[in-house]
Amino acid sequence: MSTGIRVTVWNEYRHELKNEKVREVYPNGIHQAIAEPLAEQGHAVRTATLDEPEHGLTDAVLDATDVLIWWGHVAHDEVSDAVVAKVVERVWKGMGLIVLHSGHFSKVFKRLMGTSCDLKWREAGENERLWVVDPTHPIVSGIGEYIDLEHEEMYGEHFDIPTPDELVMVSWFAGGEVFRSGCTFRRGGGKIFYFRPGHETHPTYHNAQIQKVIANAVNWAHSTQGPTPVYGNAKPLEVLTNQEA
Amino acid sequence: MSTGIRVTVWNEYRHELKNEKVREVYPNGIHQAIAEPLAEQGHAVRTATLDEPEHGLTDAVLDATDVLIWWGHVAHDEVSDAVVAKVVERVWKGMGLIVLHSGHFSKVFKRLMGTSCDLKWREAGENERLWVVDPTHPIVSGIGEYIDLEHEEMYGEHFDIPTPDELVMVSWFAGGEVFRSGCTFRRGGGKIFYFRPGHETHPTYHNAQIQKVIANAVNWAHSTQGPTPVYGNAKPLEVLTNQEA
Amino acid sequence: MSTGIRVTVWNEYRHELKNEKVREVYPNGIHQAIAEPLAEQGHAVRTATLDEPEHGLTDAVLDATDVLIWWGHVAHDEVSDAVVAKVVERVWKGMGLIVLHSGHFSKVFKRLMGTSCDLKWREAGENERLWVVDPTHPIVSGIGEYIDLEHEEMYGEHFDIPTPDELVMVSWFAGGEVFRSGCTFRRGGGKIFYFRPGHETHPTYHNAQIQKVIANAVNWAHSTQGPTPVYGNAKPLEVLTNQEA
Amino acid sequence: MSTGIRVTVWNEYRHELKNEKVREVYPNGIHQAIAEPLAEQGHAVRTATLDEPEHGLTDAVLDATDVLIWWGHVAHDEVSDAVVAKVVERVWKGMGLIVLHSGHFSKVFKRLMGTSCDLKWREAGENERLWVVDPTHPIVSGIGEYIDLEHEEMYGEHFDIPTPDELVMVSWFAGGEVFRSGCTFRRGGGKIFYFRPGHETHPTYHNAQIQKVIANAVNWAHSTQGPTPVYGNAKPLEVLTNQEA
Repeated sequence: MSTGIRVTVWNEYRHELKNEKVREVYPNGIHQAIAEPLAEQGHAVRTATLDEPEHGLTDAVLDATDVLIWWGHVAHDEVSDAVVAKVVERVWKGMGLIVLHSGHFSKVFKRLMGTSCDLKWREAGENERLWVVDPTHPIVSGIGEYIDLEHEEMYGEHFDIPTPDELVMVSWFAGGEVFRSGCTFRRGGGKIFYFRPGHETHPTYHNAQIQKVIANAVNWAHSTQGPTPVYGNAKPLEVLTNQEA
Repeated sequence: MSTGIRVTVWNEYRHELKNEKVREVYPNGIHQAIAEPLAEQGHAVRTATLDEPEHGLTDAVLDATDVLIWWGHVAHDEVSDAVVAKVVERVWKGMGLIVLHSGHFSKVFKRLMGTSCDLKWREAGENERLWVVDPTHPIVSGIGEYIDLEHEEMYGEHFDIPTPDELVMVSWFAGGEVFRSGCTFRRGGGKIFYFRPGHETHPTYHNAQIQKVIANAVNWAHSTQGPTPVYGNAKPLEVLTNQEA
Repeated sequence: MSTGIRVTVWNEYRHELKNEKVREVYPNGIHQAIAEPLAEQGHAVRTATLDEPEHGLTDAVLDATDVLIWWGHVAHDEVSDAVVAKVVERVWKGMGLIVLHSGHFSKVFKRLMGTSCDLKWREAGENERLWVVDPTHPIVSGIGEYIDLEHEEMYGEHFDIPTPDELVMVSWFAGGEVFRSGCTFRRGGGKIFYFRPGHETHPTYHNAQIQKVIANAVNWAHSTQGPTPVYGNAKPLEVLTNQEA
Repeated sequence: MSTGIRVTVWNEYRHELKNEKVREVYPNGIHQAIAEPLAEQGHAVRTATLDEPEHGLTDAVLDATDVLIWWGHVAHDEVSDAVVAKVVERVWKGMGLIVLHSGHFSKVFKRLMGTSCDLKWREAGENERLWVVDPTHPIVSGIGEYIDLEHEEMYGEHFDIPTPDELVMVSWFAGGEVFRSGCTFRRGGGKIFYFRPGHETHPTYHNAQIQKVIANAVNWAHSTQGPTPVYGNAKPLEVLTNQEA
């Protein structure tokens, strides 16, 4: 396993401050719950939140970020367009991006997808089962056939995203819906993983299997140092004739 | 809509003859229930069954088939390898193929997929909901957000198929499973659609939405007369130099 | 074949007015060269250009457009963000979109792709061969194994687009480059085809095979009236228990 | 990087024994040329050839193989069906498979693809350029924008394979053809990489970039220990009602 990946966990960090129920589940914020198990694996993890200057995503922080994790919900519109543009450009240059749960509606994700990213939802605390549909994918290494979450918010199809490059997990919900829950996308030099679970009132990020998926996704999204494409006006035409004599 | 497509509906036709419950649902056989609504659309539909000579799939019949529909279950092994080889080759040459329900384990489908095509199943007559995950696909033209089948056999993931070219529908089952229920594949010049529902004891093929999907699939699978590739030893090397003066 | 599709051909229409060489090739503008063969097929074709009010893309025009074709090059930045937003939303709602050649850098295409859409290029009038790599695709119905263009501008990989849903053609260039030349994407309810050829100084849009591909793409991109997804708060949870007695 | 992967390099090993020109290029056989750089990376590499008992692929050898590399050309038909069936089953159970060059026509590859795997070819020793079209893929880590091979056999489209899961490289040939040269597929628990170059009369496997791609592919194809799917009759239906109180 790769180690020493520089991970930044970004969290809106509003629910936890205003809602006691959420605070009970995530007393130090969702970002800390996500960050701690990653730090234990030897990654260099930092956190950033909406109300910090530049939302905590200064150039210095982004320069030191291999993989960015994103959780947001009620304040997507407060994320400045300048920071969004910077994050998108970093992804294009090879920064990995993991978008969690209600981050589907973040400016960053919508900008990278080119779709509305809309979906159905219901807050009924119903049972979710995330079935693995691609058992060969490194993101589900060490995971069972499905992950069972006793209580979660429901997200249902149609999920308005581009066709994923890889579909890794599909969720079943007690109320009758399904959802493409684990999806990969490539944009420029960057690898993106959307992972559905994580409503703020449920202890989803304390679940060891969910933590394992996020840890796997960090490894997967970490740039692989392929070629850096050269764009623009190419060298003059030189007709190639080096046929074997 | 295309009309006049020459469709052959192949059915094992064993359950109906031996099992009264199945006969009540499909008194003329599953093949007739599938064939009739297609004939009503103006297609030239014929049927073929396992116990006919050459399983009803003579060269003359295959020569006159644009799209083949396949339903089989208990007698996959009785289909001769010679007929399987012929069907596979026809698909490669452009014949469309629609594989239904338990046809996932047919020799023809396994041969074209290159996988075991295995899955989970349960006969509990539970509720199935087939959710459309690609609303732009012609196969779901005229279909609602989902198709509700009150009672069906369950098929669950992992479904051991290659990654589908297009994932059109995903099923939800009351017992907690999901399934990739509508999948397209291309093999050679032929287009293949796998469509999950249709257990022999349930009136699934009398459902108008299911009939609509099958009718759409026939149109979709009908060959589009693209180029016929030329294989083998290519013309000698001629270095191309026709740069503009 | 579908007929009576309402097609709008959008062209920047600047090169033709300023450059005599271009005007010789396309005396009535690139848009007319594209529109005429489509009109001959019975489609309801109109044109729109950058310097018309609202760039010719008023609500009334967009309301009456099933498929929009886009050619732009030197004035991408002059297309107003308001019109871009409207076109993107129309695509999401089911309008087909065909983006030609230098339209790869249009605001509309970049917005829908979520990438830079950058590439290599060279103006040397070199030979291009567009090889069909998916002979089953309706977009290459009636086309040979490849289309030979004696003189074209070169576009080379890496082409910074998301992984196409379907890769239909790959170009070979005399100078040593390759390019993914015919690519499909789905965004919301809309189907998008990017088609590479068409530099303004070459008579590419007078080529019958190129015209055939564009005509096929119009048919393919025309919306198939699948389900209209319902988004937002779903109906309350009702646990489904209708197991067969 | 993973180390200690158990790799078996299988080679037909006929050309080298009969043809002096080939022997000059690969005095110890193509298998040794492929095996040596992998062994230098710390992998546990063995070789196997057609004329050994069971073609060198005994159960003991396959039990000790994480990734199998396959080169064959003139004697595909001499590979026993029993060994082919065993190799296919091992792939389904998670063994990685790398198929090189003329291995496209091997029984193993055709069986896993479900297509004819046919293509165009020309032996003119012409220039090949393998362009990277997916710079984020781990298989091209450390590779430049393209790999230049001065002299190679040409393989041209149409290449009759299923749509690859991932298209990593596309080749350009001096004579006017293109080819999908680096393709991934998943079959059951196994990951497959087809890599085009490697005609027996050219020193392709001595090229450091080609060696790097093969080494990357070994790492990529090595099983990731995802869930082992359980197939067959599922547990009885238990309607799930654990809605939050």
